[in-house]
Amino acid sequence: MYTVHLKTSTPYDILIGPGLIAQSGNLIGKVFSPCKAAVITDSNVHPLYAPTVMHSLSNAGFQPVEYVFPAGEQSKTLSTLSDILEFLAEHQLTRSDIVVALGGGVTGDMAGFAAAVYARGISFVQIPTTLLAAVDSSVGGKTAVDLKAGKNLAGAFHQPSLVLTDTDVIKALSDQLLSEGAGEVIKYGVLRDPELFSLMCEKDWKEHLAEIILRCVEIKKDVVSCDEYDNGIRKLLNLGHTFGHAIEKCSDFTVPHGFGVAIGMAIASGAAGKKDVCNRIIQANTNCGLPSSFDCEPSILAAAALTDKKRSGETIDLIFPEKIGSCYIKKTPVDQLPFLFETGLNTIKEILA
Amino acid sequence: MYTVHLKTSTPYDILIGPGLIAQSGNLIGKVFSPCKAAVITDSNVHPLYAPTVMHSLSNAGFQPVEYVFPAGEQSKTLSTLSDILEFLAEHQLTRSDIVVALGGGVTGDMAGFAAAVYARGISFVQIPTTLLAAVDSSVGGKTAVDLKAGKNLAGAFHQPSLVLTDTDVIKALSDQLLSEGAGEVIKYGVLRDPELFSLMCEKDWKEHLAEIILRCVEIKKDVVSCDEYDNGIRKLLNLGHTFGHAIEKCSDFTVPHGFGVAIGMAIASGAAGKKDVCNRIIQANTNCGLPSSFDCEPSILAAAALTDKKRSGETIDLIFPEKIGSCYIKKTPVDQLPFLFETGLNTIKEILA
Repeated sequence: MYTVHLKTSTPYDILIGPGLIAQSGNLIGKVFSPCKAAVITDSNVHPLYAPTVMHSLSNAGFQPVEYVFPAGEQSKTLSTLSDILEFLAEHQLTRSDIVVALGGGVTGDMAGFAAAVYARGISFVQIPTTLLAAVDSSVGGKTAVDLKAGKNLAGAFHQPSLVLTDTDVIKALSDQLLSEGAGEVIKYGVLRDPELFSLMCEKDWKEHLAEIILRCVEIKKDVVSCDEYDNGIRKLLNLGHTFGHAIEKCSDFTVPHGFGVAIGMAIASGAAGKKDVCNRIIQANTNCGLPSSFDCEPSILAAAALTDKKRSGETIDLIFPEKIGSCYIKKTPVDQLPFLFETGLNTIKEILA
Repeated sequence: MYTVHLKTSTPYDILIGPGLIAQSGNLIGKVFSPCKAAVITDSNVHPLYAPTVMHSLSNAGFQPVEYVFPAGEQSKTLSTLSDILEFLAEHQLTRSDIVVALGGGVTGDMAGFAAAVYARGISFVQIPTTLLAAVDSSVGGKTAVDLKAGKNLAGAFHQPSLVLTDTDVIKALSDQLLSEGAGEVIKYGVLRDPELFSLMCEKDWKEHLAEIILRCVEIKKDVVSCDEYDNGIRKLLNLGHTFGHAIEKCSDFTVPHGFGVAIGMAIASGAAGKKDVCNRIIQANTNCGLPSSFDCEPSILAAAALTDKKRSGETIDLIFPEKIGSCYIKKTPVDQLPFLFETGLNTIKEILA
């Protein structure tokens, strides 16, 4: 088992290893005295892992209750958040009780946000059940729900008190879910780690999931520890995200997040005039079952990108690759977005032709 | 004009004086460069002051937009919050734009919460238009909405960047609204300031509103600066609140907050066996047009108090007066609540008999 210690405003550990779900009660018991534990999970994950977690929590002396919401991004709303908060209140949770987020990114973001605002903040434990959640949303303390106008537009910074990443769970994921996570893994490679990037171009990358998760978590930890509240260098983590979010939105969210990021990184490198980097990103994407292009008018994508939180007045901070392992932030006038989408998508077309 | 400087995690000024609403644009312009400013207000306050604020903001170079919600505590929900957040997104506010909360406690709490979670936090300016908001919600950074299960159960700590308290607006308030604020003012007197308390027993207390607001803000500033996130001494500010919230709830919120606090302080002093203090609080309450008793079964009130955020597992931190000007925090088993309500209400009955 790997342990990564995070020194954020609330320090916490991320444990990565096999069999952690079955031990979850005891592991949580090392951080919290027995209390009420509200396990928040979705309808897909619930039948697979909730009984084990509930049982383990009970055995360790906790009083677990569970809340299940319909799986999918369409549940990530203020309406579901409201239901979760009323559930916590009905079970009379207090500031000394905890929320356990058992699931993927939607569950972690939404249950974390519920914990952030319930009684103005109670503790939460994250048990990510997807590769995407394991490498991305489990570090950094970003919690959120979507608004009609855009993804993650309502949220808070709230650090978990413990993260349990059970690698048996990640290994059991479908190819589709592993691909979604691979999009973010490739991002960490492009940002900071040529070796990790090369691994994601290998046929057998799925044999190295524990090491991949560890490496991603450590890179994100390095970046976030310099900038907990996302005002500076942390913006690098948005590589591929402004372009990607626009694609997700224009696809009516049929393109999942990791796929959007994969395409977004290809667009960013193309738009930056780095055809060689774009080419390598497309190779990695293809190896991991990810797309690298999206058929849509640049002007429509640019309009969708305007509601991005990273926008600040008439400019937006975009991330561009210099080479594999090194990226930079560039304050860009928003009216350049159509041109950047067009240049990026054209470069991709040329490479794929 | 008085200026109180707050040294919280985000330092800010509270300005107290006449004519501030008409100067609001220029005063906000000293803190923020011209940007979008979303003025959030309710249907009562809107016709009185919103046109002046909008005009002043425009003149100072801001791009103001306004959102009006139906006045009243029944609007303080996640549903209204959701509408406000969608409004901010529709107008494409970014992290460099601001929210202006123009109104009483409901507006300040809810608009502040919207600012706290929109794009994970944007700045906000508070223009309190009630005495209660001026002395209470403008200091401390507590923002919230109500859940079905209880008041202020969803919220965040988010400091304003500027507070403008226009004393002309406070002077023009109805007797009812001044009484509601007086409940909190008396609380500051009981907590820390025998002189302020004596002033609230005088017939002409309404002639001294600017000084009263200044004194309350300074007391709250002292307490909050020691404990921004409400884990220790700040709990003193809850004097009268646990008992009071239960009364508000059991009255189906026909008893307004300031009235609940007034009765709650009388109950707390009675329950602490301080009949003399209870007697003086009742005198102050009566002088300020406030009630001191409430007709309800102690067991029902105790059950209503159980959903209070101040509860921690099987105990609750209650605040009791030692004498006028000095109070203490007592960790109390929740099963003593029925007895405390009964003792407090009986003491009040004896005094009023």
